[in-house]
Amino acid sequence: MSPRSERTPLLADSPNNPHDSTRRADEDGPSSRRAGLREVFLFVWALLATAGVIVLGVVLQHRSSTSTSPSRRPPPPVVAPGDPSAGGPYSLPPNTNTKHKHRTKRNLIFMVSDGMGPASLSLTRSFRQFTSSLPIDDVLTLDAHFWGTSRTRSTNSLVTDSAAGATAFSCGKKSYNGAIGMLPGYRPCGTVLEAAKRQGYKTGLVVTTDVTDATPACFAAHVGYRMQMDEIALQEVGEGPLGRSVDLILGGGRCHFLANGTEGSCRADDVDVVGIAREKHGWEYKGDRKGFDELRLGTNVSLPLLGLFAATDVPFEIDRRHMADVYPSLSEMARTALTALDQATKNSDKGFFLMIEGSRIDHAGHVNDPAAQVREVLEYDKTFKIVLDFLERSDTEGILVATSDHETGGLSTAWQAPGELPVYDWYPAVLAKANASAEYCALLLQQHISSAPPDSQQSLINWINEELVIRRLGITDALEAELTALATHPESAIVIFSRMISVRAHIGWSTHGHSAVDVNIYSSGGASAEKIRGNVENTDVGKFLSEYLNVDVDEITRELEDKLQAGQTAEEVGALQEGKAAAEMEGHPTEWLMEVRV
Amino acid sequence: MSPRSERTPLLADSPNNPHDSTRRADEDGPSSRRAGLREVFLFVWALLATAGVIVLGVVLQHRSSTSTSPSRRPPPPVVAPGDPSAGGPYSLPPNTNTKHKHRTKRNLIFMVSDGMGPASLSLTRSFRQFTSSLPIDDVLTLDAHFWGTSRTRSTNSLVTDSAAGATAFSCGKKSYNGAIGMLPGYRPCGTVLEAAKRQGYKTGLVVTTDVTDATPACFAAHVGYRMQMDEIALQEVGEGPLGRSVDLILGGGRCHFLANGTEGSCRADDVDVVGIAREKHGWEYKGDRKGFDELRLGTNVSLPLLGLFAATDVPFEIDRRHMADVYPSLSEMARTALTALDQATKNSDKGFFLMIEGSRIDHAGHVNDPAAQVREVLEYDKTFKIVLDFLERSDTEGILVATSDHETGGLSTAWQAPGELPVYDWYPAVLAKANASAEYCALLLQQHISSAPPDSQQSLINWINEELVIRRLGITDALEAELTALATHPESAIVIFSRMISVRAHIGWSTHGHSAVDVNIYSSGGASAEKIRGNVENTDVGKFLSEYLNVDVDEITRELEDKLQAGQTAEEVGALQEGKAAAEMEGHPTEWLMEVRV
Repeated sequence: MSPRSERTPLLADSPNNPHDSTRRADEDGPSSRRAGLREVFLFVWALLATAGVIVLGVVLQHRSSTSTSPSRRPPPPVVAPGDPSAGGPYSLPPNTNTKHKHRTKRNLIFMVSDGMGPASLSLTRSFRQFTSSLPIDDVLTLDAHFWGTSRTRSTNSLVTDSAAGATAFSCGKKSYNGAIGMLPGYRPCGTVLEAAKRQGYKTGLVVTTDVTDATPACFAAHVGYRMQMDEIALQEVGEGPLGRSVDLILGGGRCHFLANGTEGSCRADDVDVVGIAREKHGWEYKGDRKGFDELRLGTNVSLPLLGLFAATDVPFEIDRRHMADVYPSLSEMARTALTALDQATKNSDKGFFLMIEGSRIDHAGHVNDPAAQVREVLEYDKTFKIVLDFLERSDTEGILVATSDHETGGLSTAWQAPGELPVYDWYPAVLAKANASAEYCALLLQQHISSAPPDSQQSLINWINEELVIRRLGITDALEAELTALATHPESAIVIFSRMISVRAHIGWSTHGHSAVDVNIYSSGGASAEKIRGNVENTDVGKFLSEYLNVDVDEITRELEDKLQAGQTAEEVGALQEGKAAAEMEGHPTEWLMEVRV
Repeated sequence: MSPRSERTPLLADSPNNPHDSTRRADEDGPSSRRAGLREVFLFVWALLATAGVIVLGVVLQHRSSTSTSPSRRPPPPVVAPGDPSAGGPYSLPPNTNTKHKHRTKRNLIFMVSDGMGPASLSLTRSFRQFTSSLPIDDVLTLDAHFWGTSRTRSTNSLVTDSAAGATAFSCGKKSYNGAIGMLPGYRPCGTVLEAAKRQGYKTGLVVTTDVTDATPACFAAHVGYRMQMDEIALQEVGEGPLGRSVDLILGGGRCHFLANGTEGSCRADDVDVVGIAREKHGWEYKGDRKGFDELRLGTNVSLPLLGLFAATDVPFEIDRRHMADVYPSLSEMARTALTALDQATKNSDKGFFLMIEGSRIDHAGHVNDPAAQVREVLEYDKTFKIVLDFLERSDTEGILVATSDHETGGLSTAWQAPGELPVYDWYPAVLAKANASAEYCALLLQQHISSAPPDSQQSLINWINEELVIRRLGITDALEAELTALATHPESAIVIFSRMISVRAHIGWSTHGHSAVDVNIYSSGGASAEKIRGNVENTDVGKFLSEYLNVDVDEITRELEDKLQAGQTAEEVGALQEGKAAAEMEGHPTEWLMEVRV
């Protein structure tokens, strides 16, 4: 059974979806571009016929169970969150005199932009300049805090995955693709979060995907292979060899914490992880938006706190903003975590370690959806600013370090149409017109077909064009071949929708997987961060994290080795033969879609 | 008439080409990959049939006149260049105590890696680690001097060309694509090179393409449009409004300096630019490798020096190293320029400004040839090291700043084969096996067909496979469809060869043009360079150059405006209507090849 067999977030749409039909663009591209597009999609159409059967298996497995009944939608919030920028915990006057901060107490916020390569920055910066009519030199908050770049290769490949990438951050050591807090030979490695917890720091993980996904897992679990999410969930709440190391977890992936047989579970076993967390380890549990609102942006929190606000992924920001009564945003969760951890360490001589991940930048890259990606990056940029403001106002010395684990998609801010000369431009207006992700449109299409089978293919085509392509994606010049492909191959819709946006915006992609390009490092700066300025290994970033907090991950490693010698990981070593994990990882078969581009 | 109608460099091959036929690889890729490749090339084949006619026009115009008779080959050198690393001007012990350097005299070396985006670095670094069996953390000299990143958009597009890019460097101002030392409205702008010359600095330009090409031109010429190379050549030797500003020019592009009607000319007029340079402006002229060797790596130079060592481009380094008796390398020319300018300023209170361009990294990107590109980047990296060593040993305070104007090709170090799952890896071994560029192989194919028409298509296919695909590219598993495509569409051979390498190495490209991704900045460092640390505009790099030398480009701008008010540029404004240059530039129709990828 796939641990990702239940994927529900997008169904919880607001009844009154504010998608604005008045935004239908009526500008046509130049006629030469239209001719090129027609040619492209004739080939898409031809390819779909042959690739359809292969695609069917993968995509159906990935998407077929994403529908749930409306009764699964969480109830509307009782406490509406106010505009955090209007006041609240951050309304104190800024403490600009950093020399008066506590010198022996430190906070470390580590942000991960999963799958964000260098091209995502120029993409998002220019998109923002275009949509907000800003001058050429107006930049993102990230841009203004550019610090260096990170080399990302893993021990067994020039192209890393998120597991090896996050293990480099958490343990400061290179490992194999798929490794969760593990080194080659399935030797566990102590993490900065675990070492910090032992030294009296408070610790937190905030993500927009499953909290059991590779990046957060690498800080608080040790398994041979990232797909062991049932085990990861248990270790995260305190069932691992070290007991409980995390004080705060906010994100998605609720299904991994509910026993098989109960509603909303995606576990293979009947273990009630939420129950164990509450009863055995004392966690406060919040499972929906109502619960999130009760936290009052972090001012009403008792640790440890487990907040799981989506069955799997929190929807892409481009969709979530229309479902804000159901799902909190990354920036809201980050504010909540900062305030809660700050308050919890108020009277301590130790601060906190918090990892915040913009998890779904990566997912937008995997499905090659540039319109979804720019909104993910903007939300990440907003969150980065919130952390900066927190550090500025805090009495405690602190630092923000942010980087990516790898690039996803082989994104290029230029694309040459087959049979045409290259154009030296790309078109942010196309991304601006889209007000829903390809993922969400594909889900709506599936729902439409299963709930009310259309009486004819033409009526289905008309519905797709009116309701999805024009209304949601803002594309008013869809080709007949594109619409027919969507109607006859709805299981490939996510890729077709993404492609429709990308070719019109002249955005290129080379893969639905990852690439090896160096990724950017950002920081709030300061002398201590000089060690990771310039071009460094991802492991240098990891080493810096534990050095900054003055904690010893090797001590944790020795403890893990002692405790696991005759335990679960030793058994895994037998089960997972050398190299098997890497081989399984190569295609991420249950996660990533097939290539159907021409 | 196209100014690039004569392109001869590759014909001057050494008679005893040391291409090593023993390097034929006999490893086959996994059978699944071969199946994917077969599928890819079935589509290539289908597309070629339809795209062939369009491709024909562009490629024929670009390549048809690249053949010249053997008599055009420069004679072999009389003086063989010694190994510069063995001694010579750089054999002095390093002056590590920089505090004792002259404080009022400064040298500035500005390097441009044309078309090198961030992915080219991980590509080349991993290629080098693979071919030299180096550890994971072994890095390029560039990597160790990473300084920041540059935003590149021009005034009229999110994707710049080299002309707007180099104008940002030379004038410190944003301009339109195609602009050579010009601002929007065809207003000329003073350059750092011109301002430095006026202040008593010596100045130099070293490139591997035509010295009239956009990047060098932007430092020493002012025309509305980059294709005006006949005019650029004249301005560079001293016929422009400011007289002579350059003291040393080394590179290719000889054909623009010879009068139409004389052998080796590509000028539209019968102006003898070499003659004017010598007689009117006092230039010493060197036109071949023998002449280069007479310069004794810069110790035997009298300025001004004009060295034109190729009719147009110096061959790609992957090919040039087999023709070292004909063409000097970028690093040899850079050494020569450093020594000559250093000696010429020995008794001056002013130092020098030198621009060195790795010009053909961009060309390898345009034809999507990763095997050629890694060797171009390695040669650039070697040159960067030579400049660092010069600065280290010099008694004069100095700085090295290096950056790119833009990315070319939408390069991605990962590629997903159609119909297959993404693979999280790419394969440097494929690039290592190639010992010739796609450009050179395409030229050999054209020569073979025109010199000895094959008796049958099968014999041509066999020759292509044995002599080019196996012997030069190191590909031993060519598909029948690939070989047939090469035999029937030799005019598209450069694209097909590049594609054969790229798909086997799993390297992706999105265009034959440029992309908008931020590019890297490198520097020898120092407090003065803090201004361009982090993420900056390309114009910030330009402003830094003139600030570092303490020269005033605006003063030059005022002089240019005065002198040009009733002159040539005013006439141009009439001829080149607003926006025409940009529109013409969009496709670089005479320069870039058609997209025939699936």
